[in-house]
Amino acid sequence: MMRVLICGADGYIGWPLTLQRLSKGDSLVTIDDLSRRSLAESLTPISPYVIRQRELKALNVQAFSCSLLSSSFSLLQEVFALNTFDAIVHLAEQPSAPYSMQGLHQATLTQNRNIDSTLILLHLMKTYCPDAHLVKIGTMGEYGTPNAPISEGDISVDFKERSMTAMFPRDPGSWYHLSKVFGTYNIRFACKVWGLRATDIMQGVLYGVRTPEITHESLINRFDYDQCFGTVINRFCVQAINEFPITPYGLGGQKRGFLELQDALQCLDIVMKNPPEAGEHRVINQFHEVHSINDLAQIVKQEAHSLGMHTTVENIQNPRVEQEDHDYDPEHSWLLDHGFKASCSLEKGVRKLLEDITPYTSLTNLSALKPDIYWR
Amino acid sequence: MMRVLICGADGYIGWPLTLQRLSKGDSLVTIDDLSRRSLAESLTPISPYVIRQRELKALNVQAFSCSLLSSSFSLLQEVFALNTFDAIVHLAEQPSAPYSMQGLHQATLTQNRNIDSTLILLHLMKTYCPDAHLVKIGTMGEYGTPNAPISEGDISVDFKERSMTAMFPRDPGSWYHLSKVFGTYNIRFACKVWGLRATDIMQGVLYGVRTPEITHESLINRFDYDQCFGTVINRFCVQAINEFPITPYGLGGQKRGFLELQDALQCLDIVMKNPPEAGEHRVINQFHEVHSINDLAQIVKQEAHSLGMHTTVENIQNPRVEQEDHDYDPEHSWLLDHGFKASCSLEKGVRKLLEDITPYTSLTNLSALKPDIYWR
Repeated sequence: MMRVLICGADGYIGWPLTLQRLSKGDSLVTIDDLSRRSLAESLTPISPYVIRQRELKALNVQAFSCSLLSSSFSLLQEVFALNTFDAIVHLAEQPSAPYSMQGLHQATLTQNRNIDSTLILLHLMKTYCPDAHLVKIGTMGEYGTPNAPISEGDISVDFKERSMTAMFPRDPGSWYHLSKVFGTYNIRFACKVWGLRATDIMQGVLYGVRTPEITHESLINRFDYDQCFGTVINRFCVQAINEFPITPYGLGGQKRGFLELQDALQCLDIVMKNPPEAGEHRVINQFHEVHSINDLAQIVKQEAHSLGMHTTVENIQNPRVEQEDHDYDPEHSWLLDHGFKASCSLEKGVRKLLEDITPYTSLTNLSALKPDIYWR
Repeated sequence: MMRVLICGADGYIGWPLTLQRLSKGDSLVTIDDLSRRSLAESLTPISPYVIRQRELKALNVQAFSCSLLSSSFSLLQEVFALNTFDAIVHLAEQPSAPYSMQGLHQATLTQNRNIDSTLILLHLMKTYCPDAHLVKIGTMGEYGTPNAPISEGDISVDFKERSMTAMFPRDPGSWYHLSKVFGTYNIRFACKVWGLRATDIMQGVLYGVRTPEITHESLINRFDYDQCFGTVINRFCVQAINEFPITPYGLGGQKRGFLELQDALQCLDIVMKNPPEAGEHRVINQFHEVHSINDLAQIVKQEAHSLGMHTTVENIQNPRVEQEDHDYDPEHSWLLDHGFKASCSLEKGVRKLLEDITPYTSLTNLSALKPDIYWR
């Protein structure tokens, strides 16, 4: 039994994580400001938050609807003063590269929110629970695509015949990805100066919508598919179930690491069972398989075909500024060394996902699928 | 003649830079929100802003008192729409490592302000003047003290038999220094994606209070000496003129690069005359001499002695978390290659500074000298 604070508990990872931790008998406090609900519409008909909150409270979860921002500081302070936490899972960030690239307002909001939420947690941890384990979800996108292997954790950097230990170089591709890099730097500094302990997870592209604890329609998880909040795999799958062409951006040679949602929860469980030492900022790379976007498009097309849906693959002009063909070979051994076993391949996971979302095909908002946010 | 926007024109660098550019016949627009005046008291009796503003307007300078923040966006947009700029000098950041380490409010304010101001300039430049040259003042503190040589600009990083080009590793030592690193990342990204051009100046510790254009007492520059906004050299000099002990933090083996104010303006002039190519994010290291803090203390003591003031050096407990003895050998050839010639040594500069501030000794607020902001 662990005492866990889940920040962002109403979100795509936060909600199934909450259900998973409850099934393990953990003592939970959750917070979420529901901002995602106001920014994007889920394809799956998720329960209103008041329903979720009522169910959580019936299970003795303290479920707060508040932001992880200065405006909620008094409440947050009370939460930390009145509870003891073994782990604090920070999922309460503003996601989305395209959202952040829409203009100054979105760029600033994304970077401010993500900096503020991490700074607040670090300061509260320093005061109230310096031994707790901060579990922060970053993104493999912090590294960009260096066209070379990517390390898991620090590397040795040589300059003028001297060596120093440094983070693997970060080359993020949007204001959002930059905000994640800033979080990494802030956490690293707090571990060094205040002796906090943190696992900073560079996560690949998650996919999947159901987990074993989602036993009833009322518990269903959110599924975003619009150009801002939908991942490439979600957008392709919604194109497929609607029998629209699947549209990789540009050459489609971009490579990413992928991980199924249930497997991501398995990873988080392993992380929480293995806290770092005091003062340690542990960086891990969390994904299962690497595929190019063209490969992914073919897999979605084939799995859709085997389910009786017919679609094509049509590469379209890339709205982003990114490398469209590159090597990609990130290390990811920490989780494997600590017992992670993937439950499914990308093919199998895509098939399951297509099956899970097909019942909602008629709810698709088709206008959400066309990209019109440009990096330039 | 250049058309220049100076952001932060009321500050320690901004004000003498404004006077210098006027003497060169530039067409100027200046902005400042006067926030520094409300946070720290200058030893030197600087003119009220309304007086400075009146004098600037008489010289056809458009002098705006507004923030470089979203709250002033309409005005800033107008400034950019109605003017053409060759260079934009960004000095409008929240300074001070100790200030940022006081607590959550100060940490968040520092990082938010510094991110917002840079993001606003980048977005306005993209829209209105993508060919202008952004001149941004960062700090040598972005690198920390890696106990190894520091490059000027990118280096080659090797990993698993592959090489990649990357920024020299950043290891900042406060929430403030982190904010400067974030600015560097944001500017680098905007140059890459939007083709902007920028010079990102990693500046050492500036000192000195008079420049040739300060021809009259009413034009005098500000001089901060409190634990937050006063540099180590300013604090030592104010201790010396008051004949208090000079107090290096900890072992005093910390090394820093130093640069006299007039020489810094010479550097900025060289930078502005040599804009980078479109899309180039040029990083330069701007300082003249490297000294340890103990060396600096001895220099201040000796120069004060030769002016008839008597003081001692007493190392005190270090309120910061930092390396107290380390190698420090940063490259700094770009400015030398482009014609920079330092006008004075640290000894001569300290002597001049002591002479310049001695008339104001009786105005010293002694309570401002004692450090009570701790990193831990």
